[in-house]
Amino acid sequence: MTDDTGDTPAKTPADKPAAKRRRASAKPAQAKPAQDKQIAARKTSPRRASAAKKPVAKAASGQPDAAVKADWPVHGTITGPMVMIGFGSIGKGTLPLIERHFNFDKTRFTVIDPVDTDAKLVTERGYTFEKVALTPENYEQILTGLLTEGEGQGFCVNLSVDTSSLDIMKLCRKLGVLYIDTVVEPWAGFYFDDSAKASDRTNYALRETVRKQQKKNPGGTTAVSCCGANPGMVSWFVKKALVDIATDTGLKFEEPSSRKDWAKLMSKVGVKGIHIAERDTQRAKEPKPMEAFWNTWSVEGFLSEGFQPAELGWGTHEKWKPKNAKEHKKGCRAAIYLEQPGASTRVRTWCPTPGAQYGFLVTHNEAISIADYFTLEDGKKLKYRPTCHYAYHPANVAVLSLHELFGSAGKIQETLHVLDETEIQDGADELGVLLYGHGKNAYWYGSQLTIEETRELAPYQNATGLQVTSAVLAGMVWALENPEAGIVETDEMDYKRCLEIQMPYLGPVKGYYTDWTPLEGRPGFFPEDLDTTDPWQFKNILVR
Amino acid sequence: MTDDTGDTPAKTPADKPAAKRRRASAKPAQAKPAQDKQIAARKTSPRRASAAKKPVAKAASGQPDAAVKADWPVHGTITGPMVMIGFGSIGKGTLPLIERHFNFDKTRFTVIDPVDTDAKLVTERGYTFEKVALTPENYEQILTGLLTEGEGQGFCVNLSVDTSSLDIMKLCRKLGVLYIDTVVEPWAGFYFDDSAKASDRTNYALRETVRKQQKKNPGGTTAVSCCGANPGMVSWFVKKALVDIATDTGLKFEEPSSRKDWAKLMSKVGVKGIHIAERDTQRAKEPKPMEAFWNTWSVEGFLSEGFQPAELGWGTHEKWKPKNAKEHKKGCRAAIYLEQPGASTRVRTWCPTPGAQYGFLVTHNEAISIADYFTLEDGKKLKYRPTCHYAYHPANVAVLSLHELFGSAGKIQETLHVLDETEIQDGADELGVLLYGHGKNAYWYGSQLTIEETRELAPYQNATGLQVTSAVLAGMVWALENPEAGIVETDEMDYKRCLEIQMPYLGPVKGYYTDWTPLEGRPGFFPEDLDTTDPWQFKNILVR
Repeated sequence: MTDDTGDTPAKTPADKPAAKRRRASAKPAQAKPAQDKQIAARKTSPRRASAAKKPVAKAASGQPDAAVKADWPVHGTITGPMVMIGFGSIGKGTLPLIERHFNFDKTRFTVIDPVDTDAKLVTERGYTFEKVALTPENYEQILTGLLTEGEGQGFCVNLSVDTSSLDIMKLCRKLGVLYIDTVVEPWAGFYFDDSAKASDRTNYALRETVRKQQKKNPGGTTAVSCCGANPGMVSWFVKKALVDIATDTGLKFEEPSSRKDWAKLMSKVGVKGIHIAERDTQRAKEPKPMEAFWNTWSVEGFLSEGFQPAELGWGTHEKWKPKNAKEHKKGCRAAIYLEQPGASTRVRTWCPTPGAQYGFLVTHNEAISIADYFTLEDGKKLKYRPTCHYAYHPANVAVLSLHELFGSAGKIQETLHVLDETEIQDGADELGVLLYGHGKNAYWYGSQLTIEETRELAPYQNATGLQVTSAVLAGMVWALENPEAGIVETDEMDYKRCLEIQMPYLGPVKGYYTDWTPLEGRPGFFPEDLDTTDPWQFKNILVR
Repeated sequence: MTDDTGDTPAKTPADKPAAKRRRASAKPAQAKPAQDKQIAARKTSPRRASAAKKPVAKAASGQPDAAVKADWPVHGTITGPMVMIGFGSIGKGTLPLIERHFNFDKTRFTVIDPVDTDAKLVTERGYTFEKVALTPENYEQILTGLLTEGEGQGFCVNLSVDTSSLDIMKLCRKLGVLYIDTVVEPWAGFYFDDSAKASDRTNYALRETVRKQQKKNPGGTTAVSCCGANPGMVSWFVKKALVDIATDTGLKFEEPSSRKDWAKLMSKVGVKGIHIAERDTQRAKEPKPMEAFWNTWSVEGFLSEGFQPAELGWGTHEKWKPKNAKEHKKGCRAAIYLEQPGASTRVRTWCPTPGAQYGFLVTHNEAISIADYFTLEDGKKLKYRPTCHYAYHPANVAVLSLHELFGSAGKIQETLHVLDETEIQDGADELGVLLYGHGKNAYWYGSQLTIEETRELAPYQNATGLQVTSAVLAGMVWALENPEAGIVETDEMDYKRCLEIQMPYLGPVKGYYTDWTPLEGRPGFFPEDLDTTDPWQFKNILVR
């Protein structure tokens, strides 16, 4: 039933997903003028002035953890100031990777977060920590000050919640500063605005704001949008998986070099749809307490997207739509949304370790961007598009947390907790893409990173985190190597180069064919409304 | 929001639920003639012959565990042979309670189970263990031999799976032997017969076979049907809760002494429906492995009922029915069933500790028997009936097990495991009845037994088990005290006497009023099809 079709040739490194939402653990505190002043003051401090401009060699970074290995490759040099916004689970995990793989000016590296619980990790390395929440009122002043300090090209790494990716990206491009994030994040209040229409709370709407900006201001300083594990790395996996299937089915093809040719190839291979199919088997050592939401990455991030409408790129093969499905009137129109929260929307999917499983159809940028990227049009006529959505089985503690949360009509638990690497007994984050409906039925390609391997690879993170942070690393390298690419999504980047960088952090990265379909074992004891003429219809995938 | 309306007067003992399914862990092995012969041989062995008839005093039972307390009351004497069918989690837990509370003939106590893993617990006490699976072909011979040995009135305690309660009950009554079970169990094959119609796999159909037998052969030797925690104890809780509400609302009433008067009282109090509302907060020390179904009681039992159609007693106030709801054409017609498995049917319910929660609408005999018992008719015209169903939040490991099972289209896991009392870190089984829709909105009354208290009370069981086994104890006492009551359901027994016996094993037994309704916090971010004119409609309770 399952063929292990072999490791990727590059069993070495380089491709890790980033786009589980980055985070910043608490609600942003009101930005206090005192804090702003403090930042301004710091900028002219003698320490900063005297030490400025000395590039920090990787091996001499003063990194206090034991995981430093002299043989990690330096991928590039950040010549200007660096700002990391957000120091939650992803920020903490990204820090050591930046130290390993870039030369940068230690005295011009600032980390911003409204919560300073882990500030010591920053300051003991000689970097600056600013306890402040960015807001629409203060972000321009704060970031401009930090990002224009001294010479060289700055880099802004946005791993926060409750800040506007679009606004910060626009500012960075205005300043000629490289930019990367792992999600199109809005300012605080967007996700839980119960006066907003469902369509306004979609990732479709958020993504369209960035696409509009891209069209309005093409080219210019590179800003990488949504470059985490997913969205992010999985877009690179999709291309790799598509090439694998084309090769394995004996198709004659040249590897595409344009968006249109990629879409043609996918159409030719006969892919009906794609699941971002993930199983997080990491098991907490302790049982989850009541009234607590436990997760392996940002709980705020998961809750935000989990309460958004379920969204999916909508393929041309689909014959049926749920009654509460809605289309968009403007924009790329590649996606639809359901009038129900993604985190309580279950779909049938498949991963190598569990086999068939339920996943949650949580909205993600990549569901829309991938469907959009692989769309074929003939003039204005839609010819081909794959269905694409996330099908996420989080860690068991998070499954229980969701069950508890929705069982109380969505009341969020009192305690929100991210399991760090010491709290996990065992398990892996198995995150890949399932391309289905083609001649070989279905093919899963992805990372099967265990917590044990993660502990050996990098500090301050679990497997879920490392898949995200190493994608941020890959995106940063790509941006440094392509500094004038304008606003890009990960679908538009060089997937081979990005995976090459990320692969050392992903554990086994493998492809598996399966003959599983969402009709397997159905109907059971009870009649079901199935489409038996095409197993891969969304009608068969959605749990109703 | 929640009033603790005080403990029951009898904070002492005596009422514990039994009817989580009893069990016998493996599929019945083919009954081998050799085994039958062995049993026949044993019956004439010198050991049995010489030791026969000596009543065993409680304190001299040779019970090897430390939990023996000299001050447990002896509730009665079993004068004839005793047979316990099934030695799984419930059988093991019932054994020490029988030893404590009854005088019986140690040499005529036989435990039957197709699995002999725990046979030593039986044999080291001086009782007989027979490794055999009862089948339609062998049960009559095997049981007749055992139950007619020597003088006095025998007692058959049926705590098995895959044996026919009806056939064994009929045999016992023919032999003049007292009988008790915790479920109307069919012979093997019934639950998972995918050629059977859904209506034939219901508990309604099973219960009707017993009701028919009762009508056909009224009176005679007592056989107690479905006397576990639920079904069982919860029927006693319903009466106690009803009296509490009637009292607290200042209603003038006399405590009813007939079925009809009980139904009149419930109608007068204005109860629209009843949830058997349970939250098992017992937490396993170890995280659940993949491909394993973990539970706090028989996994086979839970799977059997979980794959049956969701069933509920159908109240006269209901205005809406799910599209896949079906009625029965024959019998009491008190219940409907849904064409979907109970264990994947979620409902909104409430327990004191978690507050609002999801429960699974797993079919149970009490959902039908309680609705039937409290039905008021005027001639042939239906005047009043409460809705009644189970709303079960099992232990978290079982919630995860169900998620895993249904995620693979119902493929049962390779490993089935019942957590014993040493594998549980903490928690309680909070099992009660939620009477809703009356003048004080809703009232939960039940047992909140912790694992810690369970360990002090009785050996070989967790909190879930003790709620079941102590109900079996209460039912046995009632049967001894009422040996010619014919076939009875727990609704028809003296709830005060039964609770008096069971209460010492139930931990805190309390009542709580709540102003929660299934409309609380709804709708959230998305439109919902609700009946806002009556919060307690099943339409609002069922998760769709």
